[in-house]
Amino acid sequence: MSAPVTISIDAMGGDNAPDIVVEGVRLAHVRLPHVRYLLFGDAARVEPLLDRYPEIRGVCTLRHTDEAVSGDAKPSQVLRTGRRSSMWLAADAVAKGEAAGVVSAGNTGALMAVSKFVLRMLPGIDRPAIAGMFPTERGETVMLDLGANVDCDANNLVQFAVMGEVFARAVLGLEQPSIGLLNVGSEELKGNDAVRSAANTLRESHLPIRFHGFVEGNDICAGTVDVVVTDGFTGNIALKTAEGTVRLYSTFLKESFRASLLAKFGFLFARHALHKVKVRTDPRRYNGAMFLGLNGIAVKSHGGTDAFGFANAIGVAVDLVAHGYNDRIRREFERFKAAEPAPAQRAAGTG
Amino acid sequence: MSAPVTISIDAMGGDNAPDIVVEGVRLAHVRLPHVRYLLFGDAARVEPLLDRYPEIRGVCTLRHTDEAVSGDAKPSQVLRTGRRSSMWLAADAVAKGEAAGVVSAGNTGALMAVSKFVLRMLPGIDRPAIAGMFPTERGETVMLDLGANVDCDANNLVQFAVMGEVFARAVLGLEQPSIGLLNVGSEELKGNDAVRSAANTLRESHLPIRFHGFVEGNDICAGTVDVVVTDGFTGNIALKTAEGTVRLYSTFLKESFRASLLAKFGFLFARHALHKVKVRTDPRRYNGAMFLGLNGIAVKSHGGTDAFGFANAIGVAVDLVAHGYNDRIRREFERFKAAEPAPAQRAAGTG
Repeated sequence: MSAPVTISIDAMGGDNAPDIVVEGVRLAHVRLPHVRYLLFGDAARVEPLLDRYPEIRGVCTLRHTDEAVSGDAKPSQVLRTGRRSSMWLAADAVAKGEAAGVVSAGNTGALMAVSKFVLRMLPGIDRPAIAGMFPTERGETVMLDLGANVDCDANNLVQFAVMGEVFARAVLGLEQPSIGLLNVGSEELKGNDAVRSAANTLRESHLPIRFHGFVEGNDICAGTVDVVVTDGFTGNIALKTAEGTVRLYSTFLKESFRASLLAKFGFLFARHALHKVKVRTDPRRYNGAMFLGLNGIAVKSHGGTDAFGFANAIGVAVDLVAHGYNDRIRREFERFKAAEPAPAQRAAGTG
Repeated sequence: MSAPVTISIDAMGGDNAPDIVVEGVRLAHVRLPHVRYLLFGDAARVEPLLDRYPEIRGVCTLRHTDEAVSGDAKPSQVLRTGRRSSMWLAADAVAKGEAAGVVSAGNTGALMAVSKFVLRMLPGIDRPAIAGMFPTERGETVMLDLGANVDCDANNLVQFAVMGEVFARAVLGLEQPSIGLLNVGSEELKGNDAVRSAANTLRESHLPIRFHGFVEGNDICAGTVDVVVTDGFTGNIALKTAEGTVRLYSTFLKESFRASLLAKFGFLFARHALHKVKVRTDPRRYNGAMFLGLNGIAVKSHGGTDAFGFANAIGVAVDLVAHGYNDRIRREFERFKAAEPAPAQRAAGTG
């Protein structure tokens, strides 16, 4: 953990960039003193922030660019015209080997398109996926895809299962993580063609994977499995529905504790316990969605997060680097190909 | 509200049938004394329960059948062999005009198949949808489809929007309910073909509908719109993810209040406030999913609910009857056809 690691940062990405980005670097620096940062952004705006936090001067290198990807830019447009943007340059630093991973709070679609173009895919993977962590009753669960691919076929889902499995072993340290496919019912006959066909492949294949079978929406937070696999449309909606539900619950709590004098009094005694729950469900703690399947580490921070959340996203990237996720997944795909050529590959099994 | 209404009941459907079903009828009777019940089920098991609650003897008629649909029966198998089952007979009572609506806590897929077969579709509707209510920060939101159709095209989604709109006006009493299409982003370019094409139709059509545009998962609980429209795969997963998140949050609360003596003391004062939140998020209060688009009222209770939940499902059916939902939607579809023939119909606009 103490070898120097360089992370490249899109200093201009996100709703409150570059302020919360640089402040996030400062927070991350406290926890991860061995990490160096390559910041890409507008020097006129970033320099004053670095002046404000002299303690990170020594670990930060700023590369100026006056271009940035806007929040509503179309990915295709960014691919055509965004080569001098802070996002592109930050991803390119990973491709060039100057940094071990990139973190951006910018436009998700653009970051995915740029990362795919600049970093390229790992061999054997057709599409990258966005993975994130969820708090559950049993600990934490990783879910993918959270929005990279709105339409997925069975082959994509099988590949996501493999990527999630390796992640759970390499980064979470689980020995035999269990994998569940998100569906509308646990009976074999339910669901659409893609999930049923993916389940058949995972069940019948000789992949060294512990396939649990189908899981439902309530299983995500229950922690029924270690890895929940789904398409990007459903995964994104499940993630945001869960976030919205947490917000609703805490609003109800607040209203309830404001409703009477007794309740206000109760709040004084309950405050500590309530605060602990708030911390456990704080979305900033789970900030940092991982782009898996690329030939390099890329992490997307929530665009509206604060410095605390951005620092967590940096932590996620450093974790992936420290555990050598990409080398592991490259080796695992070799192993899977040896076990059974078909499922992880689109072409005939010549692997 | 006081004209007599008859509801037919599948007394053998659900995990704890017929016990919680008959007890649910008893609870519903307290709130809705004008409602009569036609119960279908095994007399040897239901009669003793009616003996236990003499106050509902006068409003209940029991029709014996010794067949019941099992929880794991395939819908196609029930359609072939289930004509004497309590579920089928209860739905058939609506088709025959003996009851104004049917309530069952049995197998969802079977109830949908039987209801479609026995009650038939309303004219102009290709597929029925399952609709349910969600608590939100602004009140309540109706969402559909919650699982009747795992694959939906744009035309289905447009029809769901119309059915949800009429429901919000007829049953919830909203004057101009707003409609949102669930998607992975609010930008027009995101999402799959079906939602994008449905959005274009809703936006450009002359349907007298207040179309808000796309909404995301977090908008469900935020109450951004009155009606959330989605396919049955996504809707079912969003519903169950929200339920699982509420369960997780309350588990975290319980753990937190047990963690120390001060927290336990705090709980004593906070108990009332916490109980209010529990009531507001209690899934039993939202029990009773409505099958919309059929030529008759059918309501599905959660299979694992208790008597309180089942009584709520009866209340939902009585509400739909009292507000004449099916007549309203039949008239509205006429009106929509007059406004613009294309979107709500599959064939060329000859309506």
